[in-house]
Amino acid sequence: MPIRVTIWNENRHEQKNALVRRLYPEGIHGAIAAALGAETDLSVSTATLDEPEHGLTEAKLRETDVLFWWGHMAHGEVSDEIVARVQRRVWEGMGLVVLHSAHFSKIFRVLMGTPCSLKWREAGEVERLWVINRNHPIAQGLPEFIEIEHEEMYGEPFTIPEPMETVFISWFEGGEVFRSGVTFQRGAGRIFYFRPGHEAYPTYHNAQVLHVLKNAARWAYNPAPAWTSINDAPNVPHDKAPVPLQVKGPRLHDDGEAGYR
Amino acid sequence: MPIRVTIWNENRHEQKNALVRRLYPEGIHGAIAAALGAETDLSVSTATLDEPEHGLTEAKLRETDVLFWWGHMAHGEVSDEIVARVQRRVWEGMGLVVLHSAHFSKIFRVLMGTPCSLKWREAGEVERLWVINRNHPIAQGLPEFIEIEHEEMYGEPFTIPEPMETVFISWFEGGEVFRSGVTFQRGAGRIFYFRPGHEAYPTYHNAQVLHVLKNAARWAYNPAPAWTSINDAPNVPHDKAPVPLQVKGPRLHDDGEAGYR
Amino acid sequence: MPIRVTIWNENRHEQKNALVRRLYPEGIHGAIAAALGAETDLSVSTATLDEPEHGLTEAKLRETDVLFWWGHMAHGEVSDEIVARVQRRVWEGMGLVVLHSAHFSKIFRVLMGTPCSLKWREAGEVERLWVINRNHPIAQGLPEFIEIEHEEMYGEPFTIPEPMETVFISWFEGGEVFRSGVTFQRGAGRIFYFRPGHEAYPTYHNAQVLHVLKNAARWAYNPAPAWTSINDAPNVPHDKAPVPLQVKGPRLHDDGEAGYR
Amino acid sequence: MPIRVTIWNENRHEQKNALVRRLYPEGIHGAIAAALGAETDLSVSTATLDEPEHGLTEAKLRETDVLFWWGHMAHGEVSDEIVARVQRRVWEGMGLVVLHSAHFSKIFRVLMGTPCSLKWREAGEVERLWVINRNHPIAQGLPEFIEIEHEEMYGEPFTIPEPMETVFISWFEGGEVFRSGVTFQRGAGRIFYFRPGHEAYPTYHNAQVLHVLKNAARWAYNPAPAWTSINDAPNVPHDKAPVPLQVKGPRLHDDGEAGYR
Repeated sequence: MPIRVTIWNENRHEQKNALVRRLYPEGIHGAIAAALGAETDLSVSTATLDEPEHGLTEAKLRETDVLFWWGHMAHGEVSDEIVARVQRRVWEGMGLVVLHSAHFSKIFRVLMGTPCSLKWREAGEVERLWVINRNHPIAQGLPEFIEIEHEEMYGEPFTIPEPMETVFISWFEGGEVFRSGVTFQRGAGRIFYFRPGHEAYPTYHNAQVLHVLKNAARWAYNPAPAWTSINDAPNVPHDKAPVPLQVKGPRLHDDGEAGYR
Repeated sequence: MPIRVTIWNENRHEQKNALVRRLYPEGIHGAIAAALGAETDLSVSTATLDEPEHGLTEAKLRETDVLFWWGHMAHGEVSDEIVARVQRRVWEGMGLVVLHSAHFSKIFRVLMGTPCSLKWREAGEVERLWVINRNHPIAQGLPEFIEIEHEEMYGEPFTIPEPMETVFISWFEGGEVFRSGVTFQRGAGRIFYFRPGHEAYPTYHNAQVLHVLKNAARWAYNPAPAWTSINDAPNVPHDKAPVPLQVKGPRLHDDGEAGYR
Repeated sequence: MPIRVTIWNENRHEQKNALVRRLYPEGIHGAIAAALGAETDLSVSTATLDEPEHGLTEAKLRETDVLFWWGHMAHGEVSDEIVARVQRRVWEGMGLVVLHSAHFSKIFRVLMGTPCSLKWREAGEVERLWVINRNHPIAQGLPEFIEIEHEEMYGEPFTIPEPMETVFISWFEGGEVFRSGVTFQRGAGRIFYFRPGHEAYPTYHNAQVLHVLKNAARWAYNPAPAWTSINDAPNVPHDKAPVPLQVKGPRLHDDGEAGYR
Repeated sequence: MPIRVTIWNENRHEQKNALVRRLYPEGIHGAIAAALGAETDLSVSTATLDEPEHGLTEAKLRETDVLFWWGHMAHGEVSDEIVARVQRRVWEGMGLVVLHSAHFSKIFRVLMGTPCSLKWREAGEVERLWVINRNHPIAQGLPEFIEIEHEEMYGEPFTIPEPMETVFISWFEGGEVFRSGVTFQRGAGRIFYFRPGHEAYPTYHNAQVLHVLKNAARWAYNPAPAWTSINDAPNVPHDKAPVPLQVKGPRLHDDGEAGYR
């Protein structure tokens, strides 16, 4: 059974700006979906901000193995309820691939617990993404670096928690560096942040960038059944303990006192 | 200058339950503050849920180097605004020591980005905290384990991100294990979660437990100036780059088009 | 193509001790190989200490995707040259699954860079391995814990580097705990240490233990081409740099001076 | 009591090359020792390759809290016995600061368990070390980056284990990047690798570089008593277990059979 990938895009620049529309006539989500959809082991669909529930209903998320997320100018319009729903699915085991300006998305910030801030510059400069962890599944089939002729600069410090793995680090023509491919786990879900993808450049038509996204979909996929009980805090009664016990010690409730909960 | 420690406690069990009141006549916060306040390098104060702004005003947090947090039955009453304020101070460099049932506090959950759930049992059983990382600053001066005669059980899986360091792992009489002392960094702030401390037992009168808390205060203290700009995402203009640049490549704005923001 | 697994065993207890021979008439390696060999995606062979080159020739290692290692009484007889050869293959991408008393094997110690010491006791007590990271590939298909009726005890501190992931933590009847399933990366190779497996008990006939070993083989497998150049330190000439340079600054060699190497 | 710092240097380039001698008339070790020795909380001495036991006797190491290590052309001349001695002291709690070309030193390689290889180029280009982890103790008092006019290039992949913390990442004029300040723990010892310091450039006269080295000495210092038993694997007899046990289950030795060791 193929991996079910959903590409989520805020899809606003495409509506408002002729340049972006010319680059991505089907939207950034459309460009990514076309590339990933050509892989026989990936089953790809899309969802966007302006759809009901942002296209991320409970049913849609249950049927999503890996979610890609691109957002920028409308992070604040994403409903907190939907963010909580996506976060819960990540905890249950859904993979999440966070793209470019989605470093400031609500969903990435609540999963990281940090500001996720950085420096930036829009000057169309060269970005060179060095492969740091060469045999990592996400880097399979790449040369020692990916060079992108025109990209927005993101510079350190990138205020994320220390990653589980650093897969790419970027060099920018203007003098900065950035941890541009980093992995995390939250609950049963794997998370990959990948830096390139400014809306004004044809980055999502770059074959190597698309190759990374295909690798990322496969890496982020967790075939285990969803861990739907991950939010629970079950009580284990004393007589059902692995080593059954008698209750002892002080007791919270004095005799005759009612419980407070 | 001593390290400025604030002990925060929800302080509800102490008001409602005679047993807890007998164990902690000055509140759990009072017991911890008395112990830590006896150290010449620690300057200790307290704050509680029912004070205005939960006792955690902007001014109070600015003057706090390390915040301890105990909560249980009233996690939901803690204001989201205060939680965001505390989180921001952690990012800036304030240390945070999270105690026992505060695994489910809002502040710990937003910093971890995970459910922070676990199993539990209140049976007064033996807990033995093994020192895993013997020369860690938080374990200084301890024997190879701490044994507590009566404690509540917390069992794995504890749904936190992979810790930076595991300092203690607990063995429980009823057959479970738990990562009972774990460290994290979020922004410039150091975080230590420490498991023991059920309100019905005299755990915060245990000299070894108090010793850990003293060590934790010193470990979590970050002497660097507060990183108050950590939420910012500054633009670095092309002509102010470390290697000054000319802008090139496609441009987001067509000639004559107004900016969209 | 199936994953090529080689089970290495020192195979000495089986020769010297009737009890071990009765438990493992084909050797510990034989018992593991029989179980893993029944999987259609695993192609299993064995190697033992007393074979020429311990059965680990250059050719054999080149054809091994994942190596299992069991050793105990004869760690010191393993040749340093073979250890270096195995280490290099791990760096190139071969997976390594380190079993029980192989915590003190030369190969595990050189890959960890730490003593890998621990406490121990042989009393046939109960071991209960709790699954800490429930949706990790190595834990797939398991209940919340594995209980083993009779095992040797290993106790913390286990002097390894902080693991990449902690998958299992053990509870022992006699009161100790142990990080009994931990993962690492070294170069392109994935490493899994798994605690159970004392030679005097039928642990490698336990279906859940064998299930973990099957999962581990799949997890440790790296399909990338071997990173055979990982030991190299290539020079990048100034005129072949990604951004070609002129040499500048002080020069190590005065005019007319001969190079020192 | 001040922190006892020993600066170890291979001290060969200084003997063989006039340029290096002019830059470092007292040797690289002398330059570093002079800078660190000016700090009132540091007590500094030096040791070099050609001294008996490379200047690293058991007594000297026992009196060393933090060891700095610079080597390059003579890594192979360092005795394996001395390397094992230093490694053991790191395990016991001695801090280790590994400088520049010592990425290929025996001591760093045995502590990492990986090749520690990298790319390199000697072209006198600009290196800009970005502070990634701004409030880390090693980065205290620094601006957002350190710029060095002339340095040797080291490029990724740097084949080390995933660091505990990444403090600096370097940008090079020729187009490469490098994780130039990374931390590790091995046993009770803290390890910091710091990239700059090619012998042909005056890097160890750069005030910011020296500032990092001072910070590193303080960070790497572990005030705990030496963990001299860290190599031991003590037996815990069944009747001395935290929960005393009767021995049960199969027995390794048949009645009347002699033990095999």
